[in-house]
Amino acid sequence: MRTFSYHNPVHILFGAHTIAQLPDLLPAGSRLLMTYGQGSIRRNGVYQQVKEALQGWSLLEFGGLEPNPQYETCMKAVELCRREGITFLLAVGGGSVLDGSKFIAAATLFQGDPWRIVAENAPIEAALPLGSVLTLPATGSEMNGFAVISRLSNQEKRGFGSPHCYPRFAILDPHTTFSLDDRQVANGIVDTFVHVTEQYLTYPVQASLQDRQAEAILLTLIEEAPKVRLTPQAYTVRANLMWCATQGLNGLIGCGVPQDWSTHLIGHELTALYGLDHGQSLAVVLPGVLRYNQAAKQEKLVQYARRVWGMDNGSAEALATAAIEKTVAFFQEVGVKTRLSDYGLGMEAVEAVSNRLAARQVRLGEQGNIDGSAVAAILKMRL
Amino acid sequence: MRTFSYHNPVHILFGAHTIAQLPDLLPAGSRLLMTYGQGSIRRNGVYQQVKEALQGWSLLEFGGLEPNPQYETCMKAVELCRREGITFLLAVGGGSVLDGSKFIAAATLFQGDPWRIVAENAPIEAALPLGSVLTLPATGSEMNGFAVISRLSNQEKRGFGSPHCYPRFAILDPHTTFSLDDRQVANGIVDTFVHVTEQYLTYPVQASLQDRQAEAILLTLIEEAPKVRLTPQAYTVRANLMWCATQGLNGLIGCGVPQDWSTHLIGHELTALYGLDHGQSLAVVLPGVLRYNQAAKQEKLVQYARRVWGMDNGSAEALATAAIEKTVAFFQEVGVKTRLSDYGLGMEAVEAVSNRLAARQVRLGEQGNIDGSAVAAILKMRL
Repeated sequence: MRTFSYHNPVHILFGAHTIAQLPDLLPAGSRLLMTYGQGSIRRNGVYQQVKEALQGWSLLEFGGLEPNPQYETCMKAVELCRREGITFLLAVGGGSVLDGSKFIAAATLFQGDPWRIVAENAPIEAALPLGSVLTLPATGSEMNGFAVISRLSNQEKRGFGSPHCYPRFAILDPHTTFSLDDRQVANGIVDTFVHVTEQYLTYPVQASLQDRQAEAILLTLIEEAPKVRLTPQAYTVRANLMWCATQGLNGLIGCGVPQDWSTHLIGHELTALYGLDHGQSLAVVLPGVLRYNQAAKQEKLVQYARRVWGMDNGSAEALATAAIEKTVAFFQEVGVKTRLSDYGLGMEAVEAVSNRLAARQVRLGEQGNIDGSAVAAILKMRL
Repeated sequence: MRTFSYHNPVHILFGAHTIAQLPDLLPAGSRLLMTYGQGSIRRNGVYQQVKEALQGWSLLEFGGLEPNPQYETCMKAVELCRREGITFLLAVGGGSVLDGSKFIAAATLFQGDPWRIVAENAPIEAALPLGSVLTLPATGSEMNGFAVISRLSNQEKRGFGSPHCYPRFAILDPHTTFSLDDRQVANGIVDTFVHVTEQYLTYPVQASLQDRQAEAILLTLIEEAPKVRLTPQAYTVRANLMWCATQGLNGLIGCGVPQDWSTHLIGHELTALYGLDHGQSLAVVLPGVLRYNQAAKQEKLVQYARRVWGMDNGSAEALATAAIEKTVAFFQEVGVKTRLSDYGLGMEAVEAVSNRLAARQVRLGEQGNIDGSAVAAILKMRL
């Protein structure tokens, strides 16, 4: 196990009817800006619940943050925050609203061009405090300090992170997820699953508990995913999926272990260039990454085959291969397609994505062996 | 899954040679009081490492906190804190040093008789900030707001807790645990194991992830415990045991599930009256609690039998019984004896403990069905 630092100060309030407790979590006298997305919170009653909870508070609104939140849109909210002297941001929505709001929080107090936060990972010295009412389990953004921002004008999608960007609190009421459509639910399950594999399917460092905590999330997802299609109004299923998403990327399972974020980084390019949903991009890329580095990942893949998929027969190589196939089948059963051709993409996408990453001179993966040409090889396997 | 609130702000710094980073974690200009126990930190080099890291800091010392820290001793430190204007406590040691220091932190700023914090759970409005260098994995106190304090004069051992008592940070260097003796290691493993079962072996509420996170800790303990006797200087084994102890009682696996702290509460009386080690008291009591409420706990006991002990054959009742027997055998293999008679105790202990708890009109357990006479029945099974 490697040396690690873990400090996650997010206050989670989880359960039915918890939105009503918003006033207990907000600093008295705050000038609030509620940020939200494309309006789903108006249709599913969450907007109403927030407004009711915050009667009598100083509350402005900024709607219209996109899936893959856009820099240009966020900057309009930054202007609003500065002009109105906002002191606290309340992000009401899914991971995109949260990510956009983290950028707004940091950019409002940033000296200089805020795009530098994203493009150059310029250090963030301060950010407006932020809280969240989560409505879509997927990104884990509600319990971490990371965010991913896109910029239309140059088709970029890039991440940043800062301890200043941890939400002060996140309210998770599984009821808010009842109105998600099948595609959102499926993408969220895949996103969570891939977050876990990116912290788990590398090489062993005898971090026994972290391995089992990662497996705990994968096993729960595999158990709960089929139920949500059969019984979409089952509270406990929604609750379990929601808690899995949070636990998948709050830093805990990543304590002291090698990590491999290549699937996310390659996937971001597919989204930036071709508009694939985030979950779709991951379902396409992950099997290629695992296959490309199968030999280096073999020991963990075999453990994954045994403990998560319950397989035990065959050589190590056969078990590793079978585990990758099981993963692909799981994504398909969840309802997310796993090949570039499923999304109408071919060699042009392989070339475009690998060229962009080659130009950035990336060396992705826990081995640092995934450069531009490796990205091309990975994506060719996913045609 | 039940509604829950989870907020754990402790900063964990885990790994080799992390004590040297103390100055990065302490507020500049602090007037520090280093608290410690019976002197083991002088023998194993930890005292030296702390002193070296804090050269140039304003640093007073208070040694002599006992295993099961005594109110009377803690109050001497409270006087010192008040007299010297201490602004930050640094607890260097195991759970007893941490627990004592939490009490010192709260009592220093308490208005009125500080014993009320323990005896009446009087509300804590403030506490001195506290950090820790942990040297004994067991209690989980390094990542929670709870503490247990004893009072010699009336043979009491009682717990309290407050959000103000979370350590600001805890440094966990597994090397500091290399010099523990077999009994301390064994007690620590049992303590951790029982913390987990007290949050896990109740009744199902479809908290799928929490169940699997609890099982992750139990499985890791079962895997690592035999290794620590064979290879006591193996860093990774020590590291895994240390992280299990922290994860066992930092609130995570208890999110949204029923809990049964009867084993700890009955065990505290055995320690207060007869001086059993904390881990010994738990190894005696837990099997009795599980047996006494076996019918009510059956569904979770069967799950525990299957997932933790890998058993699958037999009726539900037989599996539950076998799982309890496996638990007893595990404690014995670890090196902690499991019967009152092993510690020279008989019916007088059954009567004394059950009478004390009857006088406090307890209703312990997740069913609230363990009163004084049930305690007697439980302990009779452990003669």
